[in-house]
Amino acid sequence: MRTAICERFGIEHPLFAFSHSRHVVAAVTGAGGFGVLGAAAYSPDRLDAELSRLDEEVGGRPYGVNVPAPATVDLRATATAGDAFTRVADLIPERHRDFVAHLLAKYGVSTLDPLPGHLAAPAEEFGRRVGPAGAAALAEVALKHPIALIAGASAAPDAALVAKARAAGVPVAASVGTVEQARRHAAAGADVIVAQGTEAGGHTGEITTMVLVPQVVDAVEVPVLAAGGIASGRQMAAALALGAEGVWCGSVWLTTEEAETSAPVRRKMLAATSLDTTRSTARTGRPARQLRSAWTDEWDEATESPGALPPPLQTLVAEAAMTRIGRAAESGNPGAERLAGYFVGQVVGQLDRVGPTRQVVQEMIEEFGAAVARLRGVIDM
Amino acid sequence: MRTAICERFGIEHPLFAFSHSRHVVAAVTGAGGFGVLGAAAYSPDRLDAELSRLDEEVGGRPYGVNVPAPATVDLRATATAGDAFTRVADLIPERHRDFVAHLLAKYGVSTLDPLPGHLAAPAEEFGRRVGPAGAAALAEVALKHPIALIAGASAAPDAALVAKARAAGVPVAASVGTVEQARRHAAAGADVIVAQGTEAGGHTGEITTMVLVPQVVDAVEVPVLAAGGIASGRQMAAALALGAEGVWCGSVWLTTEEAETSAPVRRKMLAATSLDTTRSTARTGRPARQLRSAWTDEWDEATESPGALPPPLQTLVAEAAMTRIGRAAESGNPGAERLAGYFVGQVVGQLDRVGPTRQVVQEMIEEFGAAVARLRGVIDM
Repeated sequence: MRTAICERFGIEHPLFAFSHSRHVVAAVTGAGGFGVLGAAAYSPDRLDAELSRLDEEVGGRPYGVNVPAPATVDLRATATAGDAFTRVADLIPERHRDFVAHLLAKYGVSTLDPLPGHLAAPAEEFGRRVGPAGAAALAEVALKHPIALIAGASAAPDAALVAKARAAGVPVAASVGTVEQARRHAAAGADVIVAQGTEAGGHTGEITTMVLVPQVVDAVEVPVLAAGGIASGRQMAAALALGAEGVWCGSVWLTTEEAETSAPVRRKMLAATSLDTTRSTARTGRPARQLRSAWTDEWDEATESPGALPPPLQTLVAEAAMTRIGRAAESGNPGAERLAGYFVGQVVGQLDRVGPTRQVVQEMIEEFGAAVARLRGVIDM
Repeated sequence: MRTAICERFGIEHPLFAFSHSRHVVAAVTGAGGFGVLGAAAYSPDRLDAELSRLDEEVGGRPYGVNVPAPATVDLRATATAGDAFTRVADLIPERHRDFVAHLLAKYGVSTLDPLPGHLAAPAEEFGRRVGPAGAAALAEVALKHPIALIAGASAAPDAALVAKARAAGVPVAASVGTVEQARRHAAAGADVIVAQGTEAGGHTGEITTMVLVPQVVDAVEVPVLAAGGIASGRQMAAALALGAEGVWCGSVWLTTEEAETSAPVRRKMLAATSLDTTRSTARTGRPARQLRSAWTDEWDEATESPGALPPPLQTLVAEAAMTRIGRAAESGNPGAERLAGYFVGQVVGQLDRVGPTRQVVQEMIEEFGAAVARLRGVIDM
């Protein structure tokens, strides 16, 4: 296949795969696509180690790193002394702590045994990382590796990130949900725009992929990747018909063999229809599409809900609880299974089996070819 | 162009145009597409007259009629005696009448002068028509004309309509927002399924076109038209790449020269971005995408709002007020202009000029060809 994006990145298929699993990233890059590792789940040290392994695994083929969006509450401003996490944690109101305790009790998730250190740590690390300093530290680590793209999603362009990436000769991709954001990011130096529709998993706007992509393509000069609603070759062909140079997929990898998804969440995803997602603030404080669960229902609808906190505080509240919930769900606790969830797009209704990542890529490319051949037939006959 | 739908209906382009304007319908059918007249705005007698004119205008080329979905509140049950409309109007609570009076006063729309009969009538007629008896009467009129399709949108298939259409040899199209609805309607005898994404104008579900269409195509045996987010040739090509046999467009005609849209509403549409729609119950009692306006903001967000009534009552409340608001807006009342609105999809952000319907069709078909040629290039090169 040939698109401007294939030539620019030296890839066979204009298929970008966002995943928090290094194994998914390596498999997509190995299959001729372009894997992008989501760094939000890692500390700088662990990211460094993961990328070193990835460098070996991809054997010179291109891959990228996605750094989390800087949070609204500036962690540096509150971390005047001592441990940054402790300072931020102090900002969580008692009402919100109480509501979480109430939820865990209501659904039978024990809070009695303290989490062992290696499980308690991720929540704290997550808290540190979602601030601007954390995002910058991750970007710094990423740029020490031979990455071919650094990506991020934020309402306003991050001038420091663009400058550092430029200096390292690494192109920058920016995720956007409106034409206005696309214009701003392109003007600030983004080399690739990811136009992401409301059907996507994670933080999304309100405009759908079908409507957003052609408008963004017309508004900016740089190549556009389409994101949201793309988990098959037909959807990939549709995205390219809209004018995108390639696609950016996240949800489709969550049910692969290489995914980081826990067994209970994967089961939920395989069973879900496209109506079983919700765009909720319950996990990060910003509207993010995810599996609808008892967690999102309670935060969004319960009369006793205090409402989600602004970012990054809601992430601290949610991830600490989710660590407990995830463990309990994996050991078969039915209440925990109801609370468990994860970011995923409306395409979750299409995901109905577990297979190797490489096979997902191959099937998408084959179906893409068939869709284009069918379109040719519509005109030729 | 050749798709199963082109062959079945003897049309040149697989482009279905839903419009309340007979002129749009005639122009699209004349340009090689397939016009579908929305009947909800007409009394049975007026529909009969419009269709007689249309029969002359299209000169034997195919067109269709769309009948409104039967309402939730059964009008027959309440119309025990006398005028059906009076009975239904009696069901509107005082709080809702008061809220409308408050809104008209707040935005400076006079309620002092009674509406002249020819303007007051439509609201009453609308009230009669949105019930099952009204919908059936319109279908009866439509089936007396040489129509090539009868279409409707409802959660459950209308067995009586399907039987009557069958007897008349007229294919039936059903609009759906979920895979489950598509299966139900196909099983009940629908000949064509219109898979309509959440970005569409009017009554819509939550799933986007990009996600919904391939799932519906895989779930039913009959041809599928894609609706929602389609107002250009690229979007048409994307819909066919998803597996649709054709497209069903409504919003794109609202800014044509032939449209029924009032001047103030058309101005709003030309100025709107894709963020300026909302899926609100404020106009019909069911979630319907429309221009965001002071009317939708007040009903959906004001603390004194009594909330929308169930269908068809909210339609009675809204359309009577909208008749006044529309008149005041046309004479330059700024408050009325803020309240004025209309059903339209997220593609409203693409609509930026007024042109003839025939030209819109031609440009869509040309852009469709260019999009397919581009996709060919991606694979061939």
